[in-house]
Amino acid sequence: MVDPVRVAIVGGGIRGSIFARVVGEHPRAELAGICEPAPPVAERLASEFDTPIVGSVDELLDKHAPDAVIIATPDFAHVEVGLAVLGRGLHAMFEKPLATTVEEAGVLRDAASASPGKVMVGFENRWNPKFQAVKRLMGQAGAPLIAQRILLQDTEFVPRQMLSWAGRSTPGWFLFPHTLDMAMWLSGARPVEAYARGVRKVLAPDGIDTWDRISATILMSDDSIVTLDSGWVLPESRPAVFQFHYEVEAKGALYDITIDDSGITHYSADRASYVGTPDTDSRGRLVGAHIDMIRDFIDLCDGQDVETPDIEQGYEVTMAIAAIHESLRTNANVRIRY
Amino acid sequence: MVDPVRVAIVGGGIRGSIFARVVGEHPRAELAGICEPAPPVAERLASEFDTPIVGSVDELLDKHAPDAVIIATPDFAHVEVGLAVLGRGLHAMFEKPLATTVEEAGVLRDAASASPGKVMVGFENRWNPKFQAVKRLMGQAGAPLIAQRILLQDTEFVPRQMLSWAGRSTPGWFLFPHTLDMAMWLSGARPVEAYARGVRKVLAPDGIDTWDRISATILMSDDSIVTLDSGWVLPESRPAVFQFHYEVEAKGALYDITIDDSGITHYSADRASYVGTPDTDSRGRLVGAHIDMIRDFIDLCDGQDVETPDIEQGYEVTMAIAAIHESLRTNANVRIRY
Amino acid sequence: MVDPVRVAIVGGGIRGSIFARVVGEHPRAELAGICEPAPPVAERLASEFDTPIVGSVDELLDKHAPDAVIIATPDFAHVEVGLAVLGRGLHAMFEKPLATTVEEAGVLRDAASASPGKVMVGFENRWNPKFQAVKRLMGQAGAPLIAQRILLQDTEFVPRQMLSWAGRSTPGWFLFPHTLDMAMWLSGARPVEAYARGVRKVLAPDGIDTWDRISATILMSDDSIVTLDSGWVLPESRPAVFQFHYEVEAKGALYDITIDDSGITHYSADRASYVGTPDTDSRGRLVGAHIDMIRDFIDLCDGQDVETPDIEQGYEVTMAIAAIHESLRTNANVRIRY
Amino acid sequence: MVDPVRVAIVGGGIRGSIFARVVGEHPRAELAGICEPAPPVAERLASEFDTPIVGSVDELLDKHAPDAVIIATPDFAHVEVGLAVLGRGLHAMFEKPLATTVEEAGVLRDAASASPGKVMVGFENRWNPKFQAVKRLMGQAGAPLIAQRILLQDTEFVPRQMLSWAGRSTPGWFLFPHTLDMAMWLSGARPVEAYARGVRKVLAPDGIDTWDRISATILMSDDSIVTLDSGWVLPESRPAVFQFHYEVEAKGALYDITIDDSGITHYSADRASYVGTPDTDSRGRLVGAHIDMIRDFIDLCDGQDVETPDIEQGYEVTMAIAAIHESLRTNANVRIRY
Repeated sequence: MVDPVRVAIVGGGIRGSIFARVVGEHPRAELAGICEPAPPVAERLASEFDTPIVGSVDELLDKHAPDAVIIATPDFAHVEVGLAVLGRGLHAMFEKPLATTVEEAGVLRDAASASPGKVMVGFENRWNPKFQAVKRLMGQAGAPLIAQRILLQDTEFVPRQMLSWAGRSTPGWFLFPHTLDMAMWLSGARPVEAYARGVRKVLAPDGIDTWDRISATILMSDDSIVTLDSGWVLPESRPAVFQFHYEVEAKGALYDITIDDSGITHYSADRASYVGTPDTDSRGRLVGAHIDMIRDFIDLCDGQDVETPDIEQGYEVTMAIAAIHESLRTNANVRIRY
Repeated sequence: MVDPVRVAIVGGGIRGSIFARVVGEHPRAELAGICEPAPPVAERLASEFDTPIVGSVDELLDKHAPDAVIIATPDFAHVEVGLAVLGRGLHAMFEKPLATTVEEAGVLRDAASASPGKVMVGFENRWNPKFQAVKRLMGQAGAPLIAQRILLQDTEFVPRQMLSWAGRSTPGWFLFPHTLDMAMWLSGARPVEAYARGVRKVLAPDGIDTWDRISATILMSDDSIVTLDSGWVLPESRPAVFQFHYEVEAKGALYDITIDDSGITHYSADRASYVGTPDTDSRGRLVGAHIDMIRDFIDLCDGQDVETPDIEQGYEVTMAIAAIHESLRTNANVRIRY
Repeated sequence: MVDPVRVAIVGGGIRGSIFARVVGEHPRAELAGICEPAPPVAERLASEFDTPIVGSVDELLDKHAPDAVIIATPDFAHVEVGLAVLGRGLHAMFEKPLATTVEEAGVLRDAASASPGKVMVGFENRWNPKFQAVKRLMGQAGAPLIAQRILLQDTEFVPRQMLSWAGRSTPGWFLFPHTLDMAMWLSGARPVEAYARGVRKVLAPDGIDTWDRISATILMSDDSIVTLDSGWVLPESRPAVFQFHYEVEAKGALYDITIDDSGITHYSADRASYVGTPDTDSRGRLVGAHIDMIRDFIDLCDGQDVETPDIEQGYEVTMAIAAIHESLRTNANVRIRY
Repeated sequence: MVDPVRVAIVGGGIRGSIFARVVGEHPRAELAGICEPAPPVAERLASEFDTPIVGSVDELLDKHAPDAVIIATPDFAHVEVGLAVLGRGLHAMFEKPLATTVEEAGVLRDAASASPGKVMVGFENRWNPKFQAVKRLMGQAGAPLIAQRILLQDTEFVPRQMLSWAGRSTPGWFLFPHTLDMAMWLSGARPVEAYARGVRKVLAPDGIDTWDRISATILMSDDSIVTLDSGWVLPESRPAVFQFHYEVEAKGALYDITIDDSGITHYSADRASYVGTPDTDSRGRLVGAHIDMIRDFIDLCDGQDVETPDIEQGYEVTMAIAAIHESLRTNANVRIRY
């Protein structure tokens, strides 16, 4: 029997807690510890997990000897943790996006190339069976790609109630990593030019200083077009907290993909909701694309041959989203050079 | 009993023929004649309509004394006929778009302002009850507009089989008049900047020298965003020859409008089709948005107070679509100045 | 110029008022008067319509000399008014259902056959363009019919708030006339056997003594099957007050027809609603299937050749729905003999 | 390390082959052998699986010493195999339905109660995450159930091309086990009365002597109603080989569940198809509800505490479907007594 992979988590929020549970469930992994600086959150974690809960990354890494670290801090707080992990040669999984500036993404990329550890970026939609099915069909058909038209939006609940840091992010940094990575993964092409425009009519007047809504167009290296529409001011009467509609147009083919509508609508006395699949199976085991992602990360650390999004792809996604934000700021069209 | 409105038609194709039937059915109108230069088409018209079929516009206008003329020639052939009609001070209805260059649209606008006749541009979606319903609701709500995201596409049937002149047009000139006029009508705002990119992978290699697909983003005078996606290379397995999905996002509201899916799908042994409403009612009278449009044109000529799209709006739509094509050609973003 | 058709209305509720407006708008009709016994309703009518508002049917018929009468009283109150109208040889339109007992329907049928007037039953879905389109396609195909599977339901709003007389009716009498007439009209076949079961769990405990929900199966004379599911206890979170889904299965064909979903969903801050087409066109004229129905009734009275649902069909629908209620009461399967 | 569960398969068709693969993949199971009498099928199995392929059940059971047997023979051929398996005290999984007569189902039930082995019936929809999600929500709400309205149909492909034995079965035996088990599982209630009518217009004239389409109504022990509509003559233009729409109405709640539409439609040059999730994950491991079902059977045999459909439930489903067929045959309503 080989030693289990010791996995630590940095950031014990909603996602970090789920990831800790997946690790705990995994037959070939064990939880090495969780770093969470906020005392009330740390307290909750301590009551749920039988693992050290610490307040500093260095303590986590040096004292609790993880083999692998999942970095689940807010979007803009990946670089310092990442460098600490990569500098020690540990395996690392970054929640998407890798970073929110090209500079930070570049620093992490360089650190990763110098590290013997495995590195992965958590573009979880690649584990969504719907997108996997489309990718296989597209691969079989091999038809020239014309356009990808992608809508991913959140209701106002997200920037107003779910995220405390919405004003320090944008719907671009929060949502485009999902869609842009998918556009790149499905096409096998890279962004070469970004155009974007945005609207600030709803949140900024209420003191949340960010874009309500961004429309971006990306030219791809295969001469196809990707349009990305994301915002977070949808009315809360939508049947899910997010809306996700993805259209792929190729020569002789159209793929029309709706992710948010699960096929089940529950009309209760006062609202209509899409019913997602349960978070756990009939015996309480976690299920879902993000769960499979973490399991694949553990397998990757365990030496298995798993195809996962690598840091180069994480870097490219950050490049392109940074270009989108530069276009938003300058009104110019921005070339993307790798 | 007052005299009926004498209406002539220029261009006896599919649309011109239907318009001639509407005129013929109308209790306060009569058909003055049809101009159709192509002999086989003229012959068919002669067998269907009890009205003069002539080969020249001047003959139609001078000899058959219409009060009003419907200009139903191909998109790029409106200006000469239009000037002949407007120069004689007759009422005129132009099929959309008014013209396919800013210069021609300007010439027609000037001629219209010098003419005592009524002038209307045939943006028929304004007569679609679905859009009318949305416009009323938006007017009642008065919420600031965020974005309009509009998809209008045709299957390959249109450029390959329906239109003989696809290579002399684009999906932009063919489809954006519908969607851009609607975006302006619903918002009450005007385009101020155009960005567009296109794809040429399918038709051009087959000798039809035009864009397959165009993605355009228009900034509006109210700081909202309009994205227009149109192409004409959808697979023919789509259940209708066109696909039309229109999303309006406002503060606290989302309108999700599907035009192509009629709510009825007919699965026959070999294909699925959306079933449109019949072209005629139970007693054989023509029905449909384009029919109501022609009836309103007749009423307008008859002196009634009808709100219809005017030549200024036709001019503005042409301006904006010309800007889109300039952006396609130059890769620059194009300001629109009226 | 011929004399206009003088049309009277009995019952000035929601429907009666709309019908009065249609008559008032019609170029070849004029309103002869409205009979409405409830003083507050009569007062409202008096302020809206420039026509006599009377409290008794005899007064309406004898003093105000209508040519035609629209009977828009509650479902169970058609027979007395109908006999008064038919006995005088006037044209008559009955709101659906003709009557709620076979005896009353028979009496009305006999009276109609002895009257020189035109008689029509208001199965308004025949004027719905969607059903007209399906009927034409089915007629062209001529394929043997297998089954019609029809769901028509209302939300709890209808029995609890809209109808004061829900406890004296059932979802069967209220909704099956719509669907069963359509099933007969589309198929050209007649019901021969009825089976039905119902549920009483929601309304009866709250003092509204009626069925919540009825499932009926009807065998048709062409050996096809019709299943009818109607109730009026849907949650009010549904995006429309009614849900209407109609499936027709024939040899080699399936027609899937959704009536309630208009193709437009409006998400406001707190609810999602299907947006119906406006009640009036851009110039304030009434529009809709029920409006076209009344116009056809006027044309029928005016001597035109219009195909409308006749009293025999009204009688057959009442026969079949009475059989359904007999099956509900006795748990037996009920043969329908004409 | 404990011994693996040795699992044998009887019936090496499409389903049997997949089940053999699941067993082969399972870390705590091994394939004991496959019984398949048809030589060409046996040959294919021999080339795919490294396990004994035998022609007789007795040989399989006596010579290859399985712990557990999956019975994947045609619907009507379960009893003899089942008795052989149960008589030896082995664990048994029956493909649905348990049997196609009440007598056979009773014999199997008795044999199961005398056997020390675990017995399970393969109602695979219980492993569908969509139904699991609905069941959990219904359990939380606890609202009185009104009706379940269930459509499950196949295209003509199934009786004409996929099944060689369609004429010896019915859409009732083939499809109702799925839907009726689900209706019982979701409600926790049992069928008490069956009514059914059918149509024979399409297949029988072509020599496939069976029902095209069956409509059944089942009264449940909780006074709710279940309507079951199944047939197998849908046009092949449907985007999937089956159509599955499930509606649950409860007091204050409606669950609208579409199973066939995956949310992804692929329009190719000549047809539209729903794209199902892949049969395997990114590393080639089998995925799907039926796969999870087999894994749970293995876990059950392995001594774990798994909730699976038991033989009593299999017996009840057969009782109810037999009652449906009796009603079809006699036109009477059939009480179901356990």
